[in-house]
Amino acid sequence: MVRRVQFYETDAAGIVHFSWYFRYMEEAEHALWREVGLSVAQPGAEVGWPRVSASFDYHRALHFEEEFEIRLRVVAIGAKTIRFACELTRGDERIATGALTIACVTRRPDERMRAVPIPPDIAARFQVAPGGET
Amino acid sequence: MVRRVQFYETDAAGIVHFSWYFRYMEEAEHALWREVGLSVAQPGAEVGWPRVSASFDYHRALHFEEEFEIRLRVVAIGAKTIRFACELTRGDERIATGALTIACVTRRPDERMRAVPIPPDIAARFQVAPGGET
Amino acid sequence: MVRRVQFYETDAAGIVHFSWYFRYMEEAEHALWREVGLSVAQPGAEVGWPRVSASFDYHRALHFEEEFEIRLRVVAIGAKTIRFACELTRGDERIATGALTIACVTRRPDERMRAVPIPPDIAARFQVAPGGET
Amino acid sequence: MVRRVQFYETDAAGIVHFSWYFRYMEEAEHALWREVGLSVAQPGAEVGWPRVSASFDYHRALHFEEEFEIRLRVVAIGAKTIRFACELTRGDERIATGALTIACVTRRPDERMRAVPIPPDIAARFQVAPGGET
Repeated sequence: MVRRVQFYETDAAGIVHFSWYFRYMEEAEHALWREVGLSVAQPGAEVGWPRVSASFDYHRALHFEEEFEIRLRVVAIGAKTIRFACELTRGDERIATGALTIACVTRRPDERMRAVPIPPDIAARFQVAPGGET
Repeated sequence: MVRRVQFYETDAAGIVHFSWYFRYMEEAEHALWREVGLSVAQPGAEVGWPRVSASFDYHRALHFEEEFEIRLRVVAIGAKTIRFACELTRGDERIATGALTIACVTRRPDERMRAVPIPPDIAARFQVAPGGET
Repeated sequence: MVRRVQFYETDAAGIVHFSWYFRYMEEAEHALWREVGLSVAQPGAEVGWPRVSASFDYHRALHFEEEFEIRLRVVAIGAKTIRFACELTRGDERIATGALTIACVTRRPDERMRAVPIPPDIAARFQVAPGGET
Repeated sequence: MVRRVQFYETDAAGIVHFSWYFRYMEEAEHALWREVGLSVAQPGAEVGWPRVSASFDYHRALHFEEEFEIRLRVVAIGAKTIRFACELTRGDERIATGALTIACVTRRPDERMRAVPIPPDIAARFQVAPGGET
């Protein structure tokens, strides 16, 4: 997925603020849900997908109007969680590498979120990328 | 209300991005709701308060770590709307002047939002500031 | 310009936060600069383009993953300012209408911003849309 | 440092969007710089402090208007980097735990950022918290 840096994503250091990389990663994740015919936030769905952990290592900076690529792949599907690895590149340069784990939880109103097994029809849509975690 | 500029609010021009002023104004509005003993988003409330219009005139720039003051006052309470005027100042300098109109709407699930009269017990909490609209 | 609502643009009311419309409008403005062969933030440029005023009237809400269109047109080019009108639509529905005025200023380091005449080679790139301000 | 959740920090799931935790952590970091008499972005400084890595583990959700505490401590000062650990709590509940590493770089215009040794007068201001990394 190709993306262009917007002005409001930059900060006074003249580069994209580090918090934006997490939003870029999520954009790619939600696009992946759509690609497999689903939505991460299906209206009326009984399950939701809160984030359990997220991280980024920053290698190079991004600047206003630069185009870059976001690559996201599934590295593990557990009973209740899905793990993704993410890479941001600009041409041949590696900009940043990220990781994201999301959990499947009940989404009933007025009920505390509780991790539950991923419904089989959802798990079946995603494929673990070859090469595993690294 | 005194506020300090955070780094993620600045942009590559070295100043606070203009979209942030609308969030500053809303922070002051929501603080006003709390001051009068309410919340703009009361859990279980039958009404909600979407924004009908918002504007800012920008006079001076704000920079990282600067402290500034946000002043908000009610300038009109209509049957279904409340209008606010906002001023941002840094010491003696006027930074920006804003306006915000919010409407009272029904908030039933699966129902299109519809403007309704402001409940009297809510309207009674707010006072129109002397001096009116300007 | 067609745009899809991202999850981080929504708020706890389940709709796009009103501050985001100003960023959508700016995305369209910066795309217009690129279309005419320029950048709003040309590296090394002697002039910058701070926002002088911005406003939106909100007619309908936007929700996660919805696609909408952003239309921006130049409504006036003054000696030192450019004014834009913006309309957001989703299919046949008018979502919001906005206005934006930007000023041409000097951008020398350690010098207070000062409005200056728009360089003729920049003004010549933009065309005032027929129909004027409304 | 005590902080209240703002409306624009929530998302359509009704909770604070996960990207905001990184901004909370940075707010605490920048407050720490001020506490030791410095600024992370000293005007005219020869060094800057880009983020090298950042991560969060999410344990519980935060909601609109909730108050929570952000605790940040220095866990390591290397030759060119500083590492922080962060904990977000709401009363007795642990909301999230984060980590942040920043690097000292040259900040000369038109020069690629390059990690450099932390100036001794800056390193001397920070104290590694007892207990180390965990």
